[in-house]
Amino acid sequence: MIYLDNAAATPVSKKVIEAMMPYYSELFHNPSAHYSAARNVKVALEDAREDIARQIGARPSEIIFTAGGTESANLAIKGIMDTYPEANCVVSAIEHDAVAKSAQHYECKIAPVDNVGCVDKNSLRELIDDNTVLVSVMLANNEIGTVQHIKDIVAIADEVRTNRRKNKNDTPLYVHTDACQAPLYLDCHVARSGVDMMTLNGGKIHGPKQSGILYKKSHVELKAIINGGGQEYGYRNGTENVAQAVGFAKALALSAENKPDRVKRVSQLRDYFIEQLESRFDAVLSGHRQKRLANNVHVSFPGADNERVLFSLDDSDIAAAAGSACQASNDEASHVLMAIGKSNDYANSSIRFSLGKDTTIQDIDDTLQALEASLKA
Amino acid sequence: MIYLDNAAATPVSKKVIEAMMPYYSELFHNPSAHYSAARNVKVALEDAREDIARQIGARPSEIIFTAGGTESANLAIKGIMDTYPEANCVVSAIEHDAVAKSAQHYECKIAPVDNVGCVDKNSLRELIDDNTVLVSVMLANNEIGTVQHIKDIVAIADEVRTNRRKNKNDTPLYVHTDACQAPLYLDCHVARSGVDMMTLNGGKIHGPKQSGILYKKSHVELKAIINGGGQEYGYRNGTENVAQAVGFAKALALSAENKPDRVKRVSQLRDYFIEQLESRFDAVLSGHRQKRLANNVHVSFPGADNERVLFSLDDSDIAAAAGSACQASNDEASHVLMAIGKSNDYANSSIRFSLGKDTTIQDIDDTLQALEASLKA
Repeated sequence: MIYLDNAAATPVSKKVIEAMMPYYSELFHNPSAHYSAARNVKVALEDAREDIARQIGARPSEIIFTAGGTESANLAIKGIMDTYPEANCVVSAIEHDAVAKSAQHYECKIAPVDNVGCVDKNSLRELIDDNTVLVSVMLANNEIGTVQHIKDIVAIADEVRTNRRKNKNDTPLYVHTDACQAPLYLDCHVARSGVDMMTLNGGKIHGPKQSGILYKKSHVELKAIINGGGQEYGYRNGTENVAQAVGFAKALALSAENKPDRVKRVSQLRDYFIEQLESRFDAVLSGHRQKRLANNVHVSFPGADNERVLFSLDDSDIAAAAGSACQASNDEASHVLMAIGKSNDYANSSIRFSLGKDTTIQDIDDTLQALEASLKA
Repeated sequence: MIYLDNAAATPVSKKVIEAMMPYYSELFHNPSAHYSAARNVKVALEDAREDIARQIGARPSEIIFTAGGTESANLAIKGIMDTYPEANCVVSAIEHDAVAKSAQHYECKIAPVDNVGCVDKNSLRELIDDNTVLVSVMLANNEIGTVQHIKDIVAIADEVRTNRRKNKNDTPLYVHTDACQAPLYLDCHVARSGVDMMTLNGGKIHGPKQSGILYKKSHVELKAIINGGGQEYGYRNGTENVAQAVGFAKALALSAENKPDRVKRVSQLRDYFIEQLESRFDAVLSGHRQKRLANNVHVSFPGADNERVLFSLDDSDIAAAAGSACQASNDEASHVLMAIGKSNDYANSSIRFSLGKDTTIQDIDDTLQALEASLKA
């Protein structure tokens, strides 16, 4: 099988599974318990937290383990907005539904993007008013692969904060970034980016599904969305899933290994694939050509019916997607493609190929051949 | 090691791990995707849902997979109360924090319990007013083991509903039960109990931690607490953790195997243990002597310091707890013991032993001997 849907799900690495296994039937104890066996489990949990913190340039106490990226994003948005119920937030027009639908519960303004998916910084700046407490902009888009220069967003927030201090406005302003698609290919170091919150997701980086963290800078005040026994500093209650926490930490560590080589290799494959798609099928690339996830190839085949093409690829054992897997379950056109000014026709002839760390040039050539058969039949 | 803290955590069964393994690196695909491989994963998820539904007497569409019991309880309480923001709820005084702390966000009345932890049905009935939409009473208490006759609670709700129909009050009234501690020892069949919602937790029944479901009768309207891509009928968004769903279904199936034998064997051990504790150490039993989880032995050793005793048991490689593991992380006295009228002194000399399906009489005798050394030293 040629698997080109890595943005939807990634196989869990053998090393990750190995790391997780002891925490099911040997070191299974409740980390909140006080006997030695449980304390060892607690140590494993805290080691995982520390590993992650070190990798992203945070303090361990700034890492909240959650049950996945969607939950992390919900906690970031709702956690802030429930703390400041009179305030508003600004989110980009191409956020994943985990952010977009959470933000809809509150007063929320949508920052537009240009026709390749880059956030319009002037518009964003203008949307931030005296009552804005949160800006959420995803680091790399899951559909079209566009990568934002998140430091620019942080700089805007810094400027707003400076003005607020001058004007004795003590409303805070936080920047959250959804970085679920990022760790295998981009820098996710929060000390370098300066974001106040960041969502990471194990399921997209060869870790277990519904594993993930929310990074939250120490000073950020947050209301929990899942209440209970006080776990995770009270931010995510429920007996900790140590196996998944350890698995996530391992997956994140593996994502850092040989990252420059991976980025180079995968982006070369991506560029070759795009070039072939354009020259052989008049495909139209969605998103930014350079500011783009190394593994994302989102194109429209003018006049083609993407479902028909995907079924024919599936017949050749090639897995790709019409858009995000989430959207696959309903019939709405992608809000991301609408935000970059595309038509329904464009959306209905679009396919997202998301390469993986093990994708080969042979996979790409075989896919091109299958597309040839499907599109020129 | 003698492990007598099964109420806090249970080792994951080998058969459960075996059931989960294929869904990490082989059948890892996103169940919302449309190619054949993903459809197979979707089938596995739906098979798990169907298995669970059959076991508890529900329809598959009434099963919502969540990331654990705490999340399920939060979804039940907040899902209803956010749907009816002007309404109130009634919860028992001995609910787990997952329910109690969720309910605190809303207008909430506390139904008292008697001195062995049975809900006072007259008081409960009186607390339900024309504006009450939710009653939450746990099936079996995680600390003192008291089991409620949940059908009586459902009967009260039925009576209220009948009166409301007569009075043209169309406010609904739902009964939720937290059954996290129940499946290994009690009947959790919703068609028999008649509850509208039920929380189950894999981590307490030899399944993976942060696996679980919320059962929700078809007609119950619920607002999601985690928004996103529309998974789980929109009630629990985020890419599904199929491995954990399959693991939970397997654990629940195993809990049904030889249940009558297990209940008999474990409750005999429990009764022997209680009898010995009472006769040899003047221990005082907390909770109801008969209406009690088969595996729960919660006692107070008058004059003893429970932490000292637990440390000395730990030195003999025996794991037990002062109360719930959640409470172990803070210093508050158990709200459950306070609710049944116990003193701080009583709480500070209390120990919960929660037996497991594999606990032997030798384990009990060894524990009694270790207690002898500790308490009579």
